[in-house]
Amino acid sequence: MTETDADDLAERVREGKLRLYELEDHADAETAAAARRRLLAEETGADLDAVGDYAFDADDAESNVENMVGAAQVPMGVVGPLPVDGSAAEGEHYLPLATTEGALLASVNRGASAIRTAGGATAEVLKSGMTRAPVFKVDDVREAGEVSSWARGNVDRLAEAAEATTSHGELQDVTPYVVGDSVFLRFAYDTKDAMGMNMATIATEAACEVVEAETPADLVALSGNLCNDKKPAAINAIEGRGRTVAADVLIPHEQVEAGLDTTTEAIVEANTRKNLIGSAKAGALGFNAHAANVVAATFLATGQDAAQVVEGANAMTTVDEREEGLYASVTLPSLEVGTVGGGTSLPTQSEGLEILGYGGGGDPPGSNADALAEVIAAGALAGELSLLAALSSRHLSSAHADLGR
Amino acid sequence: MTETDADDLAERVREGKLRLYELEDHADAETAAAARRRLLAEETGADLDAVGDYAFDADDAESNVENMVGAAQVPMGVVGPLPVDGSAAEGEHYLPLATTEGALLASVNRGASAIRTAGGATAEVLKSGMTRAPVFKVDDVREAGEVSSWARGNVDRLAEAAEATTSHGELQDVTPYVVGDSVFLRFAYDTKDAMGMNMATIATEAACEVVEAETPADLVALSGNLCNDKKPAAINAIEGRGRTVAADVLIPHEQVEAGLDTTTEAIVEANTRKNLIGSAKAGALGFNAHAANVVAATFLATGQDAAQVVEGANAMTTVDEREEGLYASVTLPSLEVGTVGGGTSLPTQSEGLEILGYGGGGDPPGSNADALAEVIAAGALAGELSLLAALSSRHLSSAHADLGR
Amino acid sequence: MTETDADDLAERVREGKLRLYELEDHADAETAAAARRRLLAEETGADLDAVGDYAFDADDAESNVENMVGAAQVPMGVVGPLPVDGSAAEGEHYLPLATTEGALLASVNRGASAIRTAGGATAEVLKSGMTRAPVFKVDDVREAGEVSSWARGNVDRLAEAAEATTSHGELQDVTPYVVGDSVFLRFAYDTKDAMGMNMATIATEAACEVVEAETPADLVALSGNLCNDKKPAAINAIEGRGRTVAADVLIPHEQVEAGLDTTTEAIVEANTRKNLIGSAKAGALGFNAHAANVVAATFLATGQDAAQVVEGANAMTTVDEREEGLYASVTLPSLEVGTVGGGTSLPTQSEGLEILGYGGGGDPPGSNADALAEVIAAGALAGELSLLAALSSRHLSSAHADLGR
Amino acid sequence: MTETDADDLAERVREGKLRLYELEDHADAETAAAARRRLLAEETGADLDAVGDYAFDADDAESNVENMVGAAQVPMGVVGPLPVDGSAAEGEHYLPLATTEGALLASVNRGASAIRTAGGATAEVLKSGMTRAPVFKVDDVREAGEVSSWARGNVDRLAEAAEATTSHGELQDVTPYVVGDSVFLRFAYDTKDAMGMNMATIATEAACEVVEAETPADLVALSGNLCNDKKPAAINAIEGRGRTVAADVLIPHEQVEAGLDTTTEAIVEANTRKNLIGSAKAGALGFNAHAANVVAATFLATGQDAAQVVEGANAMTTVDEREEGLYASVTLPSLEVGTVGGGTSLPTQSEGLEILGYGGGGDPPGSNADALAEVIAAGALAGELSLLAALSSRHLSSAHADLGR
Repeated sequence: MTETDADDLAERVREGKLRLYELEDHADAETAAAARRRLLAEETGADLDAVGDYAFDADDAESNVENMVGAAQVPMGVVGPLPVDGSAAEGEHYLPLATTEGALLASVNRGASAIRTAGGATAEVLKSGMTRAPVFKVDDVREAGEVSSWARGNVDRLAEAAEATTSHGELQDVTPYVVGDSVFLRFAYDTKDAMGMNMATIATEAACEVVEAETPADLVALSGNLCNDKKPAAINAIEGRGRTVAADVLIPHEQVEAGLDTTTEAIVEANTRKNLIGSAKAGALGFNAHAANVVAATFLATGQDAAQVVEGANAMTTVDEREEGLYASVTLPSLEVGTVGGGTSLPTQSEGLEILGYGGGGDPPGSNADALAEVIAAGALAGELSLLAALSSRHLSSAHADLGR
Repeated sequence: MTETDADDLAERVREGKLRLYELEDHADAETAAAARRRLLAEETGADLDAVGDYAFDADDAESNVENMVGAAQVPMGVVGPLPVDGSAAEGEHYLPLATTEGALLASVNRGASAIRTAGGATAEVLKSGMTRAPVFKVDDVREAGEVSSWARGNVDRLAEAAEATTSHGELQDVTPYVVGDSVFLRFAYDTKDAMGMNMATIATEAACEVVEAETPADLVALSGNLCNDKKPAAINAIEGRGRTVAADVLIPHEQVEAGLDTTTEAIVEANTRKNLIGSAKAGALGFNAHAANVVAATFLATGQDAAQVVEGANAMTTVDEREEGLYASVTLPSLEVGTVGGGTSLPTQSEGLEILGYGGGGDPPGSNADALAEVIAAGALAGELSLLAALSSRHLSSAHADLGR
Repeated sequence: MTETDADDLAERVREGKLRLYELEDHADAETAAAARRRLLAEETGADLDAVGDYAFDADDAESNVENMVGAAQVPMGVVGPLPVDGSAAEGEHYLPLATTEGALLASVNRGASAIRTAGGATAEVLKSGMTRAPVFKVDDVREAGEVSSWARGNVDRLAEAAEATTSHGELQDVTPYVVGDSVFLRFAYDTKDAMGMNMATIATEAACEVVEAETPADLVALSGNLCNDKKPAAINAIEGRGRTVAADVLIPHEQVEAGLDTTTEAIVEANTRKNLIGSAKAGALGFNAHAANVVAATFLATGQDAAQVVEGANAMTTVDEREEGLYASVTLPSLEVGTVGGGTSLPTQSEGLEILGYGGGGDPPGSNADALAEVIAAGALAGELSLLAALSSRHLSSAHADLGR
Repeated sequence: MTETDADDLAERVREGKLRLYELEDHADAETAAAARRRLLAEETGADLDAVGDYAFDADDAESNVENMVGAAQVPMGVVGPLPVDGSAAEGEHYLPLATTEGALLASVNRGASAIRTAGGATAEVLKSGMTRAPVFKVDDVREAGEVSSWARGNVDRLAEAAEATTSHGELQDVTPYVVGDSVFLRFAYDTKDAMGMNMATIATEAACEVVEAETPADLVALSGNLCNDKKPAAINAIEGRGRTVAADVLIPHEQVEAGLDTTTEAIVEANTRKNLIGSAKAGALGFNAHAANVVAATFLATGQDAAQVVEGANAMTTVDEREEGLYASVTLPSLEVGTVGGGTSLPTQSEGLEILGYGGGGDPPGSNADALAEVIAAGALAGELSLLAALSSRHLSSAHADLGR
């Protein structure tokens, strides 16, 4: 970074010769960011020293952010080891969590310990598919029916167009939904190790051209919210988006008492009245204690899209008193993760994936993202067990008083 | 950080003399984190140089994270200036956004530009209250009715107990809900400039002691999921949690065409078929295009709880073709923000708040958090306008192709 | 009925001199109905002898139907006696059920028998209030905030206007909700023994005039769907509409086995996996087995509005294995019933209410509708118990095979 | 009916020699019903003359009701003619509606008139399938995945077992859903002209035996609430149950003004703020004005299951201002109707179907039920148009004041 250049750039913005987003056209990314910090300091009085003290090459973030000024730094810790027997994940894992919520890691760690003592969690990716659902306009419900039928009968042609745009993605299916003169086509793709939303968007745009050419339907919006991205929606909770993944564990009753300081019976009661009945009464789409905490913290630590925590929160926690012990499970129907693309190649996030051992493309393709999903599910399970245990022994509040703010 | 000490600590963990979470008992936070990085490198092969290159004092993060190894760094940029005429926010703002999703800032910036040209956004905090809802067990529905009546009639006594635990929080109300032999009491607090969840939890625990002493109800869990924290739930979308805040703008038709490259009519159509009809068909609790993107990015940039993006996504976007122009609004019923506590005092996050000018406690108390909420709402509005414009001119996919991955 | 007149009327319709809905202006209701049957027979070939063979005076149905041709006859039976210890209901009841679904009464009767053996059900009206929520349009979110504040501060004035239209109804509260430039005011009324929707509508219309006179808000629709009438909606499931009523029972374990041919444990498992987990996964607002069956059948038998079965289905069934036995409850948050007005004074429906002993206005006012709600809740409980028992012993299908179609 | 026998039967019940539900074992259905009326009159004081004055042969109702005492009589009228151009329905229809809600028929008739003037409604069955979803228990999420895969791969074997139980039904598909150790298999059937729930139940029970024999899954309940029958649930609103049917119409602007006394613009505004925004804010699964009214009234008039009005209320109404006029549509995703079985063969209900011309089995099979669904959709459209028109001209309240109670 040349100091002079940042000063110079800032001056040209002040003079109205450049706009704030044009700086990268006239300097390298470091310099542009420095110039912006300078201008912001002047205009707002904010000292941006910490924001400017980032540990990556600004050029490498150009595909992740515009108008860059630096970085937000979120404390990262680890919990574990967490043994996971998954369809793709295997063995012990340290799970990186980035968060500002005190007591969270301590809580998840306690759950991980209980799982470890019980011999580990089982995890399974049950379904996988990234969706994009454009909305079209037609003349009337008759035509809506015809377009739907056409789409059902021409998945091959749509696949051909869609897959021409991508070297990795495969169209799995197209499901039509009709509301009056609006037709929604929900495209689902296998996007391998990528979270895949942009891949799905680009592929679907190509498929939409076929729909428009072959049917009377007119595209209104490339996303018609039946996808559904970053909004709480039953369609994701029911049909899934990204990975549908579940993890579970069976903990002997005496270990529940020794390791979690409560009883199987008390955990069952807390789960039933809080996670099932309470959530039901709240009109919820997520029946869990705090799965979003683990989803958010692992997403930040591994370069996932933080806004997709929304769908990650569509989780259901179940517990069952079995003869052999406490059975507990967490099912996340719409966990959208990738190990390539997005924020995964930024240095700290890439290192987060390295801690897990699932960075980059997997072999076979998709297996790294599957494994990541399974470990997150097991981490969410640890978090659920720990919070249910704390609640059932009335520890929540004091835990926060001790560890948090 | 003393290298020797980190080595030594690591050695003691290897030898089984210390556990990973006990390191801070034997060394300062920097050293403990370094020791953990060393151990992880050995066990997982992960090089944690970037994670370890953080720009804050590890001791200062002790209330935010346990088992710390370093930090995740998320690229931060700014959009704006965004003029906001709020009940607390006032004037032009640069909005800091931390994200790894390429094209997001460019998109929001385009919307901010449209709002600026139109004279700015109006914003308003419509309701405010942080909730916590314990669940109690009673004998039967008769007793459930009695406990509910008792709670309705004894808010003053509950307030006395609750408020004894906090210097800032004020109990606003207690609403009982009954399902069979489960009684939920939803406590709502004015927590001023703090997001307030922990304050609400601690205060509610004290109030629960009164409930248990004065009624036959037995506490099952201090949170009974009618709060509802970090899960998508209609109760938050309907009744609000944290700040219920809205922002809107009126953009002359010709500016819609000049600045957003589309027409008022096309935006209305996209909003109706996507955000209203599509969301309805999806069984959604969020009727918007991508409000969660702005919520997540501002939350990361200003030290909010990333998992509460879930509730932030409960937003509704409306547009209306008026004679004078395009009216657009975003209403976020459950935006949970604070300018003190949580992650807000970490250096980069504190600087994020400084960019906005709303760091720390406001005058009067609560006004800084109100202002923050209003600016986020205006930012979400900018994001909605831009994406609706892009969709209605079929730009979404190509925008991603150009700018993102 | 004069045959000649019906012929004559029919002839005048054929000649285009009268329209089908004008017949009552030219003849008594019996004759008009007969004329319509004649015309329909000619036009459609349908023989309407049974439809025309109704057991009430057509004139008495003029406030219930227009263009009358006769009546639909729905088989009615009774179950019981069902002992109910309610806040208003007391003692043993025969519950009239009108249905066409074979096996339903046998099933409910089996549940009633189990409740009777266990000493009866407890029932309680937990909340009561009929709502109507008009939607207004304002200029912007600032004005939305002002109108909301005004409404919160002027409930007395709104009550004065509203209550001037009714001799019975009392305005309980007005709750504002805002989405952008739409303001919804949810008015809640105590309507005593009337279901009260029309009373609420008329009273609210008067109150709306005050709102429009005193604030800048413009009424868009007298019902803005936050009421919410006859649509499945979380606001009713959470906040209630009409009566929020619950019933429960404690059945000794050995009676579960003897009377219900299953075990407490099996019922708990069926309820958890079906009514709680299954409903949650389905994105449901009703967590029960078939409460709507009992609601629909009692509504038909007692003159309630059949379309309000929709809200009645928002029920939650819970069961709990207690030391003393199986605890089971049903909570119906939005059961809209009346014992005066609507269809309650038609002969067969009035007799249905007589079977229960709660026809007409109660003493004190409201107590008859409360009692009716409590008995329906107890009946729903009987239905839930019986179906859960059947499912848990795999009897559902064969029960239908034996008794139904 | 023999008077003596009824007296005699009643006496034997009084003496404890017979139970109320055993009377049909000792007398014909008429006599048994008479005996019950006598007993009820004694015990409750209720005079059941009207209930006992029914227009069908009690023996013919034995598959529809147990413990029969008579019938509830619901006033029936007709609206129309309503021209419907459907995939199965064709031509003008008089629509029979049985209701106790004054003003309803007048309202629907006004809408039907508007549709007629505009040349009629278009209607289309978009999807068809009756579902039943048993819930099974497995050991862990691994096994859940295996059972799901097995089910996906063995639809043929399941079809063979299921279809062996029925001469009409055809298994269309089986969709697995997993939550922890619960596996739900949603079976969908083509049940032709029958509503088909019992057929689906019986067939699914047979298929469950195959599942249990071939996989480690244990059946917990033959219905696991992902069906979802008679509860408001997103899965029905999204994926459909019974018929997914839509109807629409295009009304020239001047006819909106002449026939509906309002403007296209005012209807669009009312629909957007009430049916879309208001419903969204209410957390609704039904985005309409009062579709349930028409569904309930036609269900009663044609022998459908009144409790299934719940799913019928999952309807969405859309309107659009087009150049040529007002476009309006109603889409009912889960309308469960039949023209054979259930209550359809009872005399008054059979006559109700005759008025429409769709009684009994269709040619081809399923076409009568399709046609019935289409006509109900068109009727619902008429109701929506009329109420939206009334609301947008503020007529709702006064319409009720004039015509109703």
